[in-house]
Amino acid sequence: MSLSKLDKIPYGGDYNPDQWPEEIWDEDMRLFRIAGIDMATVGVFSWAKLQPSELVYNFEWLDEVLNKLQENGVRVCLATGTAAHPAWMAKRYPDVLRVDFEGRKHRFGQRHNFCPNSPTYREYSRQLAGKIAQRYKDHPALALWHVNNEYGGICYCDNCAQAFRNWLKHRYGSLENVNSAWDTAFWGHLFYDWNEIVPPNLLSEHLDPHDPTRTAFQGISLDYARFNSDSLLDCYRSEYEEIKKHTPHIPVTTNLMGTYKPLDYFRWAPYLDVISWDNYPSYDTPVSQTALRHDLMRGLKQGQSFMLMEQTPSQQNWQPYNSLKRPGVMRLWSYQAISRGADSVLFFQLRRSAGACEKFHGAVIEHAGHEHTRVFRECAQLGAELQELGDVILDSRVDAKVAIVFDWDNWWAIEYSSGPSVDLKYLDEVQKYYDAFYSQNIQVDMVGLDSNLDGYDIVIAPVLYMVKPGYAKRLESFVENGGLFLTTFFSGIVNEMDLVTLGGYPGELRKLLGIWVEEIDALLPDMKNRIVMKGNQFLSRNEYSCSLLCDLIHSEGAEVVAEYGDDFYEGMPVLTRNHFGNGEAWYVASSPSQEFLQDLATYLSRSKGIQPVISAPNGVEVSQRNKDGVSYTFVLNHTDQSQSVDIGSKVRLELLTGSSVANVVEIGPKGVMILQH
Amino acid sequence: MSLSKLDKIPYGGDYNPDQWPEEIWDEDMRLFRIAGIDMATVGVFSWAKLQPSELVYNFEWLDEVLNKLQENGVRVCLATGTAAHPAWMAKRYPDVLRVDFEGRKHRFGQRHNFCPNSPTYREYSRQLAGKIAQRYKDHPALALWHVNNEYGGICYCDNCAQAFRNWLKHRYGSLENVNSAWDTAFWGHLFYDWNEIVPPNLLSEHLDPHDPTRTAFQGISLDYARFNSDSLLDCYRSEYEEIKKHTPHIPVTTNLMGTYKPLDYFRWAPYLDVISWDNYPSYDTPVSQTALRHDLMRGLKQGQSFMLMEQTPSQQNWQPYNSLKRPGVMRLWSYQAISRGADSVLFFQLRRSAGACEKFHGAVIEHAGHEHTRVFRECAQLGAELQELGDVILDSRVDAKVAIVFDWDNWWAIEYSSGPSVDLKYLDEVQKYYDAFYSQNIQVDMVGLDSNLDGYDIVIAPVLYMVKPGYAKRLESFVENGGLFLTTFFSGIVNEMDLVTLGGYPGELRKLLGIWVEEIDALLPDMKNRIVMKGNQFLSRNEYSCSLLCDLIHSEGAEVVAEYGDDFYEGMPVLTRNHFGNGEAWYVASSPSQEFLQDLATYLSRSKGIQPVISAPNGVEVSQRNKDGVSYTFVLNHTDQSQSVDIGSKVRLELLTGSSVANVVEIGPKGVMILQH
Amino acid sequence: MSLSKLDKIPYGGDYNPDQWPEEIWDEDMRLFRIAGIDMATVGVFSWAKLQPSELVYNFEWLDEVLNKLQENGVRVCLATGTAAHPAWMAKRYPDVLRVDFEGRKHRFGQRHNFCPNSPTYREYSRQLAGKIAQRYKDHPALALWHVNNEYGGICYCDNCAQAFRNWLKHRYGSLENVNSAWDTAFWGHLFYDWNEIVPPNLLSEHLDPHDPTRTAFQGISLDYARFNSDSLLDCYRSEYEEIKKHTPHIPVTTNLMGTYKPLDYFRWAPYLDVISWDNYPSYDTPVSQTALRHDLMRGLKQGQSFMLMEQTPSQQNWQPYNSLKRPGVMRLWSYQAISRGADSVLFFQLRRSAGACEKFHGAVIEHAGHEHTRVFRECAQLGAELQELGDVILDSRVDAKVAIVFDWDNWWAIEYSSGPSVDLKYLDEVQKYYDAFYSQNIQVDMVGLDSNLDGYDIVIAPVLYMVKPGYAKRLESFVENGGLFLTTFFSGIVNEMDLVTLGGYPGELRKLLGIWVEEIDALLPDMKNRIVMKGNQFLSRNEYSCSLLCDLIHSEGAEVVAEYGDDFYEGMPVLTRNHFGNGEAWYVASSPSQEFLQDLATYLSRSKGIQPVISAPNGVEVSQRNKDGVSYTFVLNHTDQSQSVDIGSKVRLELLTGSSVANVVEIGPKGVMILQH
Repeated sequence: MSLSKLDKIPYGGDYNPDQWPEEIWDEDMRLFRIAGIDMATVGVFSWAKLQPSELVYNFEWLDEVLNKLQENGVRVCLATGTAAHPAWMAKRYPDVLRVDFEGRKHRFGQRHNFCPNSPTYREYSRQLAGKIAQRYKDHPALALWHVNNEYGGICYCDNCAQAFRNWLKHRYGSLENVNSAWDTAFWGHLFYDWNEIVPPNLLSEHLDPHDPTRTAFQGISLDYARFNSDSLLDCYRSEYEEIKKHTPHIPVTTNLMGTYKPLDYFRWAPYLDVISWDNYPSYDTPVSQTALRHDLMRGLKQGQSFMLMEQTPSQQNWQPYNSLKRPGVMRLWSYQAISRGADSVLFFQLRRSAGACEKFHGAVIEHAGHEHTRVFRECAQLGAELQELGDVILDSRVDAKVAIVFDWDNWWAIEYSSGPSVDLKYLDEVQKYYDAFYSQNIQVDMVGLDSNLDGYDIVIAPVLYMVKPGYAKRLESFVENGGLFLTTFFSGIVNEMDLVTLGGYPGELRKLLGIWVEEIDALLPDMKNRIVMKGNQFLSRNEYSCSLLCDLIHSEGAEVVAEYGDDFYEGMPVLTRNHFGNGEAWYVASSPSQEFLQDLATYLSRSKGIQPVISAPNGVEVSQRNKDGVSYTFVLNHTDQSQSVDIGSKVRLELLTGSSVANVVEIGPKGVMILQH
Repeated sequence: MSLSKLDKIPYGGDYNPDQWPEEIWDEDMRLFRIAGIDMATVGVFSWAKLQPSELVYNFEWLDEVLNKLQENGVRVCLATGTAAHPAWMAKRYPDVLRVDFEGRKHRFGQRHNFCPNSPTYREYSRQLAGKIAQRYKDHPALALWHVNNEYGGICYCDNCAQAFRNWLKHRYGSLENVNSAWDTAFWGHLFYDWNEIVPPNLLSEHLDPHDPTRTAFQGISLDYARFNSDSLLDCYRSEYEEIKKHTPHIPVTTNLMGTYKPLDYFRWAPYLDVISWDNYPSYDTPVSQTALRHDLMRGLKQGQSFMLMEQTPSQQNWQPYNSLKRPGVMRLWSYQAISRGADSVLFFQLRRSAGACEKFHGAVIEHAGHEHTRVFRECAQLGAELQELGDVILDSRVDAKVAIVFDWDNWWAIEYSSGPSVDLKYLDEVQKYYDAFYSQNIQVDMVGLDSNLDGYDIVIAPVLYMVKPGYAKRLESFVENGGLFLTTFFSGIVNEMDLVTLGGYPGELRKLLGIWVEEIDALLPDMKNRIVMKGNQFLSRNEYSCSLLCDLIHSEGAEVVAEYGDDFYEGMPVLTRNHFGNGEAWYVASSPSQEFLQDLATYLSRSKGIQPVISAPNGVEVSQRNKDGVSYTFVLNHTDQSQSVDIGSKVRLELLTGSSVANVVEIGPKGVMILQH
Repeated sequence: MSLSKLDKIPYGGDYNPDQWPEEIWDEDMRLFRIAGIDMATVGVFSWAKLQPSELVYNFEWLDEVLNKLQENGVRVCLATGTAAHPAWMAKRYPDVLRVDFEGRKHRFGQRHNFCPNSPTYREYSRQLAGKIAQRYKDHPALALWHVNNEYGGICYCDNCAQAFRNWLKHRYGSLENVNSAWDTAFWGHLFYDWNEIVPPNLLSEHLDPHDPTRTAFQGISLDYARFNSDSLLDCYRSEYEEIKKHTPHIPVTTNLMGTYKPLDYFRWAPYLDVISWDNYPSYDTPVSQTALRHDLMRGLKQGQSFMLMEQTPSQQNWQPYNSLKRPGVMRLWSYQAISRGADSVLFFQLRRSAGACEKFHGAVIEHAGHEHTRVFRECAQLGAELQELGDVILDSRVDAKVAIVFDWDNWWAIEYSSGPSVDLKYLDEVQKYYDAFYSQNIQVDMVGLDSNLDGYDIVIAPVLYMVKPGYAKRLESFVENGGLFLTTFFSGIVNEMDLVTLGGYPGELRKLLGIWVEEIDALLPDMKNRIVMKGNQFLSRNEYSCSLLCDLIHSEGAEVVAEYGDDFYEGMPVLTRNHFGNGEAWYVASSPSQEFLQDLATYLSRSKGIQPVISAPNGVEVSQRNKDGVSYTFVLNHTDQSQSVDIGSKVRLELLTGSSVANVVEIGPKGVMILQH
């Protein structure tokens, strides 16, 4: 991370003094000191306060806030405040308001509510970012810029329609190319004039208000998803550029949201100086899902460490059931973030709101208003620990030999697909493969299509439905050079315009995989088939189950490792391995049980000599960061019981206690160890 | 009730002769006589018939109807007919049409469909009420005015938007106060001009078309709920005042709907001369829910008796499954209403419709058209009984020593709340406490915040989330003077603007309760905790279960009566009693099982010397009304078996049979006894 | 069928060469020859291609396609292409776009998307049909006209509103009659001007976006359903007439969709020269549902054979789970269609799309593009068989002695009804009675209200809620002449305007049935009652169960065959038989278990001397067509096991194998036999 002059992991979070009387600010500072808080994100929703009308700006209060923070040793992540436009703007310039999926023009309300192609919004947000940058460019507290907040949502207004047409002109050059990309001859959709094109929503191509993925024209909807992501990125970039005019050396970010579907974060990442994201697991989110998201965020900039920009100290308010984080969990999950590449621990928020819709969202300072709460005490403990840790972990790297390919375009295209099964969810399939390695503490990088595959031994691309130009060649070259590639059912089907690669699935991957997929069967929710291993006893069992989709494949050279056990395609291959150059290309023709994937991951890892960081009991997560030849191994006990972990005979320094440890160590419930060696 | 000159309980119901050919009217009269019907509600949906165009009125048919009823000894509850505006009005003056929650302007259709702030509607409805009052003010059949019908629904049109702004100006005085009340600094919602404020619906602050309680700004939505209730009340009042010009001494009502959420009936009650309501239990509504609603209706005017304005003689049409009322059930439930304060028994409707959407709604006269039906026979039997009863019960009162506080504002605010749990439903919690007393036949009053608490020994305020100005003081004074007050988890959180009372929950109730609530945990649907009694064996068991929410509390002087048995807050208080002045204040920190509440209700009642009216087997409901030193005890057997009830050794007169009874009496399935003593 | 000059069952399907480069067309022809394909439906979605702008038409490509097909022996079912209007038309003439149920004006997208009352659409679609007919009227490949495609959907725009008013004027003559038909006096809906009438949708009379059957005014909604069906029929007829000007002797059709609720196909049928329909059973559709639909399609034109216009060779794309048709199933279901009256086997489609929303819909030529696939092989096998069969079956008839009455008006009215139960679904009840005969291979005709009943021994009218003028008389005359009539609960309730026939249910059927229905009870989903047979042991058991609704009936002369076993109406009749003239009229007062219906069907059939075509094991369907004194008996094994069927001692020729068979024959899994005799 390029946060300049850091000497420890920044600790703090969103701070909204403009929502409080000034009288309370000094008390805030006192409490920050007790909790070890040294970074505050300020001004995220302050537009209406900063700009009461078109020509009037009001920065005095913000001056005071920044000065006060500076005096108290708190560095500032300064927001541009453009995530919620003022009410006066909505009233005077309705073009800032969105039109939704059902075609309804909205009125003023909520947040994250602007049309990304509104001329008014673009101009005023750019101006505001510029004014703030100009005013505070030399403020000593300024550490980081925070543009907008949690960009998201989709607009379908007429300004967007026009911008979409321009985007298409730029992408395709001619209407003829558009007609061809979208296959508009189907259902007589040929366009003869750019203005005939309208945004794909419930009033045009979409079929179901309850399922926005159901579209009659996949190509149109897919391009609109790309366009919308790009439109919001343009909003970000216009602020970014304005800021850079004034502070070229201060890093700029915006807080992402993990696996947020509408935005292609791989396209965004180059324009963020540092990745930051908000981590809000639900009450029933497995920790491995959080881990995947951390790894994905780390992957956005090829392993560069990222910021944990938001998490709750205790509870959320917008879940159906907002359970308290149990004692120790906030600390445990904070270290989980750090262990996977985070270089900050920040909360939403520092003081709990008294009104409106987040008053039941936890904060460091609760409504009681003092430090004598469980939540504050846990925050203060972590604050002290981070102070103690200093800079040792900062900017260290995670090393992985296994990469899992993740692609937003592929995600969109798979789920816009009409058929073969509504239950096919890209994220679920990716998570299944991720879990197979995670559960054994084998480190994984989440990589995009542009990522360099050279350093990896194993590359896994679950459901690589869309194969973009050149990617098949890159995979071939990876395998030729000794790499192990694995992909699954429903792969190699379409090109980047969602047009089928004719001649037989998996299209461009057919040579690499040595198979032909003749048909794709969809199983009902309760149906299963069997994976029957063909004598080759390298997995722990002879049989496993699979479900969801079953590709009916023929080997065209690939070794058949397992066959279907049931149905009319009993005996057809379900698992194949193709020797290709110096490497191997595997194909998993259905969606297997987790037992199978875990066994397969074990086998593949061993075959490549890849070891777990540390083998640990179930529920104990281990991850490692490295810097300057030193390793920092995080052992995280997610269970409610003490666990014994064999860390090896080499004596290591446990950083949180300062003790030396070796061999079998006990780690308490929700406990954390950081082993340096 | 101030219905003048009553000599018996009025019996009858809605009568719509304008939906039938005149030829049938005499047959109606014949059948009314057989059934003992002596009151008819006329003209509820007759606007289009009464006023065929802007300047033309047509009253002749109504003259004839009233004369005919008068000649046949049927008194008239005369409707103003304004619940469904004519089609011509919708066509010519679209301002009478509503805009719905999703922002859609409606067209002509349905009923209860007018915008409450439509100038056209206001003017024409006032005029019509005036014309009818003027014409029939001296008609001898006229007994009561029935304004409109089942007021309800919400409009979000531009006229409402403007009226909302005016309402806010009147309530808050300044925009600064509005910004403060709504905490608009949060998410940058500061308003600088009144016209920037728009109604909170799906196009602005609301988030979910399927759950209208999900709002981004609780304060705005809460005020809009208040405003909408007031707007409809204004419609009612404008008709009321017009009528009173002509008939100052004839009582005026409109039919309410029990626990109808959108209207704050406590704010309406002062403007109704007599409360009336429509009782439509669903096929699966427990009888205790109906009982609560009767008690609530009685509570609206501090115990004054009310009218049962509508019920079905047999079945409904708008439930998913419209089961027939089993033999005896209509009679049983009619007496249930009377036993809890009703001074009338009226049906919807007297003759079953031949067309449109209520043709499968039961009526006294079924489609067969004659008296030889089960339903008619049951109606006629009840008609004869009511004639026999005469005026003995009329205007008698129910005496209760237990009050349960009910507040619409609190209901709205709790359910607009974002967090801690979507499963928290105010009505459910109130019903649980009500049931604890109902099941033992201990009489309860449902009271509003303005009700006098002096006469009560026990006051229970389940989930008193919102504490309005002065109410904490009133509760303190009630307890100081020896009263027993009980409240629950999630109480004392906010003021009347839904802003948190800072410094620690339960805010203004903290001193009274002697506790501090540090955190609030939300349990998943299947999770439970345990209530473990602390040695003090005054309840029947040592342990009970609780769920939903768990307040984590610290005693600040209160006696800890029970503790949590599980989770990280095991051992923290879950039930506390605080001695305060001469009384006690109890706090139940979670949502307990019904077993617990029943045991607690028994204990608390006994501690205050409160006795059941009569102790009776499960399913036998007992309630009592008193007048002039005489008691009328209703024993209602809701079960399908005969039941033995010990009514005590004193000999009492059973009014329906005229027999004298004492000690153990048998009451048949669905049977009713009225004991006078 | 009046397809001229047929010498065999046409085989082929939808062919969209305009969605493909011309280079591929010759390969198509080669593959068609291999598969035995001799009919192609061309141009279904070609409007935008054929007419690039208002004044320009482009037919050259279509000339070439037709010539190429002709040269290759493929006859053409030529589409008018009007099912999806061009984008330029939507842009220039927005009146072609629909307004939906929620009142939203749509924009360009999807298909089947035109307003049926759009002047622009009417004019341009008529013109296009005329131009195509003129151009190709003498083309030797032309075999059949295919107007539009799968007409459907509903529009609520202002043009439709005006057309609705005109339709009403034509139907009712006066507004007074409209008010009376709709019972507008109810809820004050009296109309005084035609323009006050608006379409009934969610903005007016309808109550629930998720259930379009919930309406406040059944009469209005019912007439709008009729009007909408008529409007789309007018669209069809305007093209029909235009075509007939040029080719009076070429048959014209449009593809129907079985039990498609919005269109009253009995009203459409007279205007189709031949009925054709698209058969898309879902993955969980019982084969008996498909059978019913085939029979219904055959019934539309009184037994005239029909065309199977579309089915998928392998899988669909728009189901939640698009399972492959198992080996043999496509062939089996094709013969099922033929066995019930189909004279063609056509697929959607011949070549699988490369893009857009049907690319995962199966086709004869899969994405692999060659003939070496399972699906192609199965298609080619069937093609060869059909060639072998020649014309023997063509134009043969199915003879049935049992008729089941089916009426769209009745369907609409029942499900618009508010009460007694949301679970009452007309189609379910019809299917239950159909299944009772289907399961024993007794042939049934599905007949409309205008169908001649003379040839039938048994006529069944499940839930004949609406009795149209004269129909009761026709049923009486059928029974008087010895026929057996059976109807059920909730029959005889309303007239054709959905107004209750007063005086006692079942209204006009009361005399025929000899009963009076006093009340109708609705059972909760899990509730049942019992049918207890009254000593008369002609069914196999003494007791059966029933559910849903229970009519409480009194015999007025009918023999009570069975009584209710439970509830307060225990002992009241549940099954009655009334001797009337020379026949019998039965009434089933509740919705019985399938066991009961099967036993009853057996008894009634035997009593009329009606025999199964062949008695066969469960899962073996048998149907028969006759021509020129020869019978063709189809034996279809839907199970996955071989089955033994006793076909009788007479030796018969099995057409598919050419072998002679008699007595017990084995038929393999998914096997088909056609026995000629």
